[in-house]
Amino acid sequence: MSQRAALAGFHAVTARLRNAPQTIDALYYDPGRRDARMRQLLDRAQQASVRPIPVEPARLAALVGEARHQGVVALCARLENAHSLPQVLDRIQPDSLLLLLDGITDPRNLGACLRTAEAAAVSAVVLPRDRSASLSSTALQAASGAIESLTVIAVVNLARSMDEIKEAGVRIVGADHAAPRSLYGLDLRGPLAWALGAEGHGLRRLTRERCDELASIPLGGQVESLNVSVAAGICLFETRRQRSAIYP
Amino acid sequence: MSQRAALAGFHAVTARLRNAPQTIDALYYDPGRRDARMRQLLDRAQQASVRPIPVEPARLAALVGEARHQGVVALCARLENAHSLPQVLDRIQPDSLLLLLDGITDPRNLGACLRTAEAAAVSAVVLPRDRSASLSSTALQAASGAIESLTVIAVVNLARSMDEIKEAGVRIVGADHAAPRSLYGLDLRGPLAWALGAEGHGLRRLTRERCDELASIPLGGQVESLNVSVAAGICLFETRRQRSAIYP
Repeated sequence: MSQRAALAGFHAVTARLRNAPQTIDALYYDPGRRDARMRQLLDRAQQASVRPIPVEPARLAALVGEARHQGVVALCARLENAHSLPQVLDRIQPDSLLLLLDGITDPRNLGACLRTAEAAAVSAVVLPRDRSASLSSTALQAASGAIESLTVIAVVNLARSMDEIKEAGVRIVGADHAAPRSLYGLDLRGPLAWALGAEGHGLRRLTRERCDELASIPLGGQVESLNVSVAAGICLFETRRQRSAIYP
Repeated sequence: MSQRAALAGFHAVTARLRNAPQTIDALYYDPGRRDARMRQLLDRAQQASVRPIPVEPARLAALVGEARHQGVVALCARLENAHSLPQVLDRIQPDSLLLLLDGITDPRNLGACLRTAEAAAVSAVVLPRDRSASLSSTALQAASGAIESLTVIAVVNLARSMDEIKEAGVRIVGADHAAPRSLYGLDLRGPLAWALGAEGHGLRRLTRERCDELASIPLGGQVESLNVSVAAGICLFETRRQRSAIYP
């Protein structure tokens, strides 16, 4: 993972302008785009004392590879908000919620999971370093700025990290479409980590065996699985719903 | 919308092999790909009496445009399972659930919404013909075969269709991040339609005003919105959860 990032698109660039404009080295935009969204972004840049640089769309595309830039790209320092796993586990509270992602290799899916996790206010996302998509421009764009305020921890050995998480008093529930028990039948209060695997493959055996429980999302149609970010949203927001003090 | 479709990727092709193999005109695959997933697909094709044709990966890419083909493409007849709105409204039951998508122009997001809707067993998805992504290869791939068993109705005027839906006794709840009321505070039983708008823009004013109620998904982080397919998953599956007879 390099120490610099190219953020592409309105969501990601706006989030960075809001949270850490001082980390932006250069903000490039397509002057041919003059809609309300672009005007808002340029206004926000001015407020943050970042001067936007007009460039050809082809230059934007060259900066971000396959990510959709929507006419705006920011080159900036990568934020270091990923603490270590021991630091996260030192701070476990009764309402702590973690997300373990086992082998999400599609960058767009990874980004969408991070965005969902951030919106569900998880304490941290834990993923195996070697079996995950990198935080490329595509992933960062799909994350829509979530990475700016989310703790993401890449670990060497997910199975060993799961042992440490359980020793810290966190219950791990694995999402498994073959599990006989529905997540709606589980009490999801107390420190908890959801473990989700890649689409098609699901959780790897070593990961599944280390879960305290397995739960399924009861599907009513013909498709065999949900997109992993949709599954993450259903699991994480059902957990938040049950912790009802959060939702008056 | 043409009457023929190029289905790309394992999910979409497997669903078609399972549901309607007789509609497949040609099944092309990359013989260089020899993993378990490809073997399973080829086995399934054989069982369905469809003979796969080995071709160069470049030929597959040419067939599907920007969709990711994963080494497999099926050319087939487009299934006609989209009934008319009056037909759908004639069959409204106490547990009917509809999804109205207002202006989802990104084909990947549209496909992901259809996949989620199918998994939540909605009766139909209704979308405005002129303000929606078309059911391109990209959308069909993201839908992972959902379109094979889902009723999708493209209407000329969404606002007018919403009036018809309400007249048929279906309550329409709009997802609006500015709504003071959380979806978890609503009773979601009885015939119901969720209305979701495009990311960034949300529901258009004419659509929002026609909703019987508005509800928000309470977000806990910094990001301002969820991916629309994730939001659809949370709204639709919370509705299913509340209709608890479905989930013993």
